[in-house]
Amino acid sequence: MGKHYDELTARMAEVIDLNHAESLLNWDQETYMPAGGAMARSHHLGTLSKVTHDMAVAPAIGRLIKAAAKEQDVTKSAVKSAMLREAKRGYDRSKKLPSDFVAEMSRTRSQAQQVWIKARQASDFKQFAPWLKKNLDFARRAADYFGWQDHPYDALLDVYEPGMKSAEVKAIFANLRNQTVPLVHAIARAAAHVSDACLSGHFAKEAQQAFAEDVSRKIGYDYARGRLDYTAHPFCTNFSRDDVRITTRADESFYNTLFFSVLHEAGHGMYEQGIAPAFDRTPLGGGASLGLHESQSRLWENLVGRSRAFWQHFYPQLQEHLPHFKDVPLDVFYGAINKVEPSLIRIEADELTYNMHIFTRFELELALLEGSLKVKDLPEAWRAKYQSYLGITPPNDALGCLQDIHWSIGLIGYFPTYTLGNIISVQLLDKIKRDIPDLDGQIARGEFGALLGWLNKNIHQHGRCFPPTELIKRATGQSLTAAPYVAYLTGKFSEIYGLADEKSNPTH
Amino acid sequence: MGKHYDELTARMAEVIDLNHAESLLNWDQETYMPAGGAMARSHHLGTLSKVTHDMAVAPAIGRLIKAAAKEQDVTKSAVKSAMLREAKRGYDRSKKLPSDFVAEMSRTRSQAQQVWIKARQASDFKQFAPWLKKNLDFARRAADYFGWQDHPYDALLDVYEPGMKSAEVKAIFANLRNQTVPLVHAIARAAAHVSDACLSGHFAKEAQQAFAEDVSRKIGYDYARGRLDYTAHPFCTNFSRDDVRITTRADESFYNTLFFSVLHEAGHGMYEQGIAPAFDRTPLGGGASLGLHESQSRLWENLVGRSRAFWQHFYPQLQEHLPHFKDVPLDVFYGAINKVEPSLIRIEADELTYNMHIFTRFELELALLEGSLKVKDLPEAWRAKYQSYLGITPPNDALGCLQDIHWSIGLIGYFPTYTLGNIISVQLLDKIKRDIPDLDGQIARGEFGALLGWLNKNIHQHGRCFPPTELIKRATGQSLTAAPYVAYLTGKFSEIYGLADEKSNPTH
Repeated sequence: MGKHYDELTARMAEVIDLNHAESLLNWDQETYMPAGGAMARSHHLGTLSKVTHDMAVAPAIGRLIKAAAKEQDVTKSAVKSAMLREAKRGYDRSKKLPSDFVAEMSRTRSQAQQVWIKARQASDFKQFAPWLKKNLDFARRAADYFGWQDHPYDALLDVYEPGMKSAEVKAIFANLRNQTVPLVHAIARAAAHVSDACLSGHFAKEAQQAFAEDVSRKIGYDYARGRLDYTAHPFCTNFSRDDVRITTRADESFYNTLFFSVLHEAGHGMYEQGIAPAFDRTPLGGGASLGLHESQSRLWENLVGRSRAFWQHFYPQLQEHLPHFKDVPLDVFYGAINKVEPSLIRIEADELTYNMHIFTRFELELALLEGSLKVKDLPEAWRAKYQSYLGITPPNDALGCLQDIHWSIGLIGYFPTYTLGNIISVQLLDKIKRDIPDLDGQIARGEFGALLGWLNKNIHQHGRCFPPTELIKRATGQSLTAAPYVAYLTGKFSEIYGLADEKSNPTH
Repeated sequence: MGKHYDELTARMAEVIDLNHAESLLNWDQETYMPAGGAMARSHHLGTLSKVTHDMAVAPAIGRLIKAAAKEQDVTKSAVKSAMLREAKRGYDRSKKLPSDFVAEMSRTRSQAQQVWIKARQASDFKQFAPWLKKNLDFARRAADYFGWQDHPYDALLDVYEPGMKSAEVKAIFANLRNQTVPLVHAIARAAAHVSDACLSGHFAKEAQQAFAEDVSRKIGYDYARGRLDYTAHPFCTNFSRDDVRITTRADESFYNTLFFSVLHEAGHGMYEQGIAPAFDRTPLGGGASLGLHESQSRLWENLVGRSRAFWQHFYPQLQEHLPHFKDVPLDVFYGAINKVEPSLIRIEADELTYNMHIFTRFELELALLEGSLKVKDLPEAWRAKYQSYLGITPPNDALGCLQDIHWSIGLIGYFPTYTLGNIISVQLLDKIKRDIPDLDGQIARGEFGALLGWLNKNIHQHGRCFPPTELIKRATGQSLTAAPYVAYLTGKFSEIYGLADEKSNPTH
């Protein structure tokens, strides 16, 4: 009884071990690997991904999945059924990719990333263009291998956001754009209301890091099962629920960069650290989708970390760490970290214009994948989109289309999940506030246990037990909806920019 | 022509990629892994080593080795023949170990190391004893799988020092002991001649590291293809010739710890960095034996780094980095770093008594492996040996039998290579001084290019092209001999301790 299921999970555990080994090689490549190690690392990753892929698509796994599906203790157990569903989903997808293709793609990505780092440093898109072409070609071929109906992008998006289609994303984004653009315009007219001048100055990296570590620890990121390092592009990765690492980057002249990326990545980290221990080394370990993952990072970064209550508690401590803020009143600081202003760098964008960065990338990805946009024309297309959505134009490619790591490591179809995460984060917060009416009071007292407990109970622990849409419905009682997100943005920024007055006095 | 050979090397390259991935997992475990990650890491390593082992012993490799041996362009090429010899050596050995045994051994070692770290911190041998028992059991079973004639130890030693037998080691060690013990006694009578008081004080870790990095860079360790980190036990590891990492540990109250371990590990590192690029991802990449590897680390640490010429050049720079030394004359410093004194910690021992630490471990390993010494009796046996060889007794196990990492990660049969390395290092130096008569002058001017060039040309670049005994003979014109080493020790320490007087005046 359960014999095939047990054999299947033992095999899956080994595949996952190798996936995690691969993740560590990637982590090292971005943190500590000396420059000379790049070529060898691409070989390590190529071989490891090929071997892992071969194990994952072994015919025996296909047979075991079929056989286990008939075992009584599997059909009767919701968790075991979910495990089988995820094993099958992974197997069916992996089986479609030839192992040489996987090895070659992995090697190429590893090399492309190294080129991207240099190209970005030199702000020279031409260096990176041939590699982006290769990655796009791999993405197209992968989409064809996976199979698709309406658009090849659907096959890629499904990897990150199971079940979601690009047409749905287009509709959600169009709706969100329509509902938030008037707000952006209203804010533009009231721009003088808020200044973020206080966020510039000299902030020693060590002091920034000490405070950010302190705060991330207090909200619940566990450093005994994690660590913080520096990379060109902040990220979170994990090799089990008990080894979940985050990274950040420092800007000694601008406060937001380090602090909010630590909160963001710690949000991802707490998700992984909160998954049920029983799901470690199984296909249920890991977040339900990237959108859900991003809902956690954005919840901590923005909904908590850019709230007034949060800084009522932490601002005196920040002032101790960085005396620069001693003469800055809390209200001024609160306005500053919430200033809405078109800007060039996605990960430093405010909550409202952030989505414009995503719309840009999503539309360009679609065009690149379709071939309606040529790689060599990307910098120009990027500048045009930024001009159109945000009214600004990057002066160079480092601040333009070279800023994100994603395309360099082949993550195409990934960007929309950021905005989906924003939407989900507020949908969750809406329900949390009904379940914990005193949430703001708790945050203002530096108490995060009930909030993290709610997230653990309703989201984290379940890992991939439920498909993302079902998990959202179970947690909030509703299907995915952007309504709470729009209401949140309108309410928060109307207050900060005094827009209620504008509305009540339309002759202004 | 060469078809089988090419296929063989392509397969070997993949096996080596995975070996290097495993090495990175080990490096991370000892440098940056959070405590919580230990259990998962043991799974990663267990699975990875099993998969690697399965690839290494695939029947196809056996067939290819046989087929390639008949290919003309292989038999005609010394390098290709050597490649085949090493491929066969690895294959024959790996084939003898069942893959489940390998996975279980790897998992156990990873866990044992974690226990050792805690046991050492708590100075509690009892915590570690059950794990040492497991590692010994694996070692015994491995020796039986490999096969042996005279002593199971031979099967283990052969892994690290190809072709060497424990009986030979016993003979070499007995001879060395007989020839150096009178010198130790003579020095004991002249102990007052040298003080190392100046090496104690407060030395900020950052200043120590900056100087050690600077020196290691100047002697030729390439940081673009390497890096320096901190671990409980210093080591050198590599994932290609272009990613060779060293570690050290810091003691802020004692100067020698950090500096000399950096020189030592940089010596290992320069060996790996100097291997011919064509040997990367082949069985010829890597040092010829551990004894030869150790000859490089000890050459830089002791023969260069503890020489008068070396400090004639570097002492003023040290005084800049650590003002503590401003009032210490060079002669006093030179005596201090060469003080001979029985001590408890192997890696901090002076050149002369160092070998006594090795004799101890070698004899205890033999006894543990034979079963004539029980694990539970190890601390007592350790204390007895230290009393007998060095006249001192460790006050606790952290300073006694828990001090070294080796047994915790299953390295049994490894220790003798340290003393073999000492012997080889001086045999090489002897020849180098004949080839570069101005060596001391160059070192005193801070010029290390000719020395490193000699080592590159005669040792490093060859990788595993020649068996260790042959490589020594090619480089020096002689078989392995301890005579130069004994002469070196006698000459150097007689001068430092003024023993020439004693000899010429035997009535003292």
